[in-house]
Amino acid sequence: MRATLMHSAGDVRIENVPDSRIEQPTDALVRITASCICGSDLHPYRSMTAEGGPARMGHELIGVVEEVGADVTTLAKGDLVVSPFAISDNVCEFCRENLQTSCSHHEAGFWDGIADEGGQAEAVRVPLADGTLVKLPVAEDSALMPSLLTLADVFGTGYHAAKMAGVKPGDRVTVIGDGAVGLMAVLSARRFGAEQIILMGRHRERTELGREFGATDIVAERGEEGIARVRELTGGHGSHAVLEAVGHLPAYEQAIGVVRPGGVISRVGVPQYADAPVGFASLFGPNVRLAGGPAPVRAYIEELLPAILDGTIEPGKVFDASTDLAGVPDGYRDMDQRRSLKVLIRP
Amino acid sequence: MRATLMHSAGDVRIENVPDSRIEQPTDALVRITASCICGSDLHPYRSMTAEGGPARMGHELIGVVEEVGADVTTLAKGDLVVSPFAISDNVCEFCRENLQTSCSHHEAGFWDGIADEGGQAEAVRVPLADGTLVKLPVAEDSALMPSLLTLADVFGTGYHAAKMAGVKPGDRVTVIGDGAVGLMAVLSARRFGAEQIILMGRHRERTELGREFGATDIVAERGEEGIARVRELTGGHGSHAVLEAVGHLPAYEQAIGVVRPGGVISRVGVPQYADAPVGFASLFGPNVRLAGGPAPVRAYIEELLPAILDGTIEPGKVFDASTDLAGVPDGYRDMDQRRSLKVLIRP
Repeated sequence: MRATLMHSAGDVRIENVPDSRIEQPTDALVRITASCICGSDLHPYRSMTAEGGPARMGHELIGVVEEVGADVTTLAKGDLVVSPFAISDNVCEFCRENLQTSCSHHEAGFWDGIADEGGQAEAVRVPLADGTLVKLPVAEDSALMPSLLTLADVFGTGYHAAKMAGVKPGDRVTVIGDGAVGLMAVLSARRFGAEQIILMGRHRERTELGREFGATDIVAERGEEGIARVRELTGGHGSHAVLEAVGHLPAYEQAIGVVRPGGVISRVGVPQYADAPVGFASLFGPNVRLAGGPAPVRAYIEELLPAILDGTIEPGKVFDASTDLAGVPDGYRDMDQRRSLKVLIRP
Repeated sequence: MRATLMHSAGDVRIENVPDSRIEQPTDALVRITASCICGSDLHPYRSMTAEGGPARMGHELIGVVEEVGADVTTLAKGDLVVSPFAISDNVCEFCRENLQTSCSHHEAGFWDGIADEGGQAEAVRVPLADGTLVKLPVAEDSALMPSLLTLADVFGTGYHAAKMAGVKPGDRVTVIGDGAVGLMAVLSARRFGAEQIILMGRHRERTELGREFGATDIVAERGEEGIARVRELTGGHGSHAVLEAVGHLPAYEQAIGVVRPGGVISRVGVPQYADAPVGFASLFGPNVRLAGGPAPVRAYIEELLPAILDGTIEPGKVFDASTDLAGVPDGYRDMDQRRSLKVLIRP
């Protein structure tokens, strides 16, 4: 079968690999019908060394179950399913607390951590299939597919940012980053009833989509200038919640600059730094809280699904390009160069 | 009048200073009847340079109102009052949200930031007296004085740690630090219904008092060894809440080592560092939250007072020594050398 491999920064190839197949009785084999490229895939695309590669890519997928292991009880051949970016048994003590990203099963983990599988491919072996996969009540050619695919990562991740920030009616919220996750954070903050949603981003097409998703103000400036602008928009004190959807240190520093005393910075951009300011002058003095992490999107799928099915929301608008597998390397390039916001793959 | 001045690390003196007096119509002049030395006073005691000094010391006090400014409406000469370590108007938007440490009034701030006043003295000018001071319904010679004095800082600070961590019935809690604030964090975690309270500290007399306040386990080991011991005591996964009452970087690192995925590190020890680990390997990956800051103890006094008045709790047990003003320099030395846990001052 064909799959996407990253060999080093900037070097993405579609290659023939051994067919995925059932290995454990709890596995499912899924033929992928929709997948995509994630903003977080751009981190290795910009920094990966050849020693680290090649790596199978892709952690967002929808597909049709082709075969199930002997112990799989909730799925059958022909089911259309969505897979979160983390594999989990959904029954351990962490999963029961809706923290599936910390599932304690030894086969649990992130798709990106599984050596010979990935979502940007024709098929995939899904470990712990009963726990990981969620059945979708539509046909594989449903027009809702782009929106449903956001349940695999970006929608649940943006939702996690807002949820971990405890966004509530009347709150002032600032979202840092106009990528797909930032836009989903806007949509989610709106769902939680935020009164003001300031989107910090400089790409007009994206911030326009942000307005459509619920942003009330756009701040294109960055750094000190951007901070001053947000403070002006928030009556001088900053935002109750800052949803950080970038992952680079300047975004973290910007978050500290725009958060209100007693407020919360909720991070879902994967941090590309180890240490950062947390002392008296940054977090401690103003009692600012820090929250977030990899989103347990498995916990949110059932909750977010109805509004997609009934057309209330259309998170799939974050996809502004689509391709087959052969076009995936170009898709990486386009996203890296910000010519595409998010690329849908139909293998 | 006489007051405590710190000239540089290790150099604390009792000196004659100009009498405190009313300066603003919102001031009160308070004759101090009880004060004390704080663990946080030991930070400058160990590091202050002569250029930084001399500094008036003391931010915990109980006293009798001697005079009030023309605009003070809730207090009168003769009232016994307790002052939090932060001055606040108690009516601004932050005070109304119970974040008095971020009061937006221009006279608000920490006692330690006021140049010519301090609690380790015979008297003190209290700015924003209506907002800052709380009347105590006892006589100045009440036997409850040590416990009531803890309302000025350490009890409210330990309580803040537990409250910001959201400690709830059934939780496993680890408290780092067996100083007065750590012990108050133990007492507070118990009040919130924590099932397991592990106190990390190596001073037997203090950890014994910790047991009396509600600690279920004591871990004397530090660093990797201490972390391993806490993990053993918590079934391998760590504590839901870690209350960090030290303020040094190793304590923060220890907190990361013992916190459970999805858990919270709540800091009330004043950080003696600016940057610390917050990346994927520390906070982000396991969705660990960071909370805490200077406690808005003003918000907690009325809430914590009844249990002291009716004898349910006796937080004043953290005072294991007392002195007059002349003995304050020795009190600093004894606390620095850990011969005293916390020194009560009766000026």
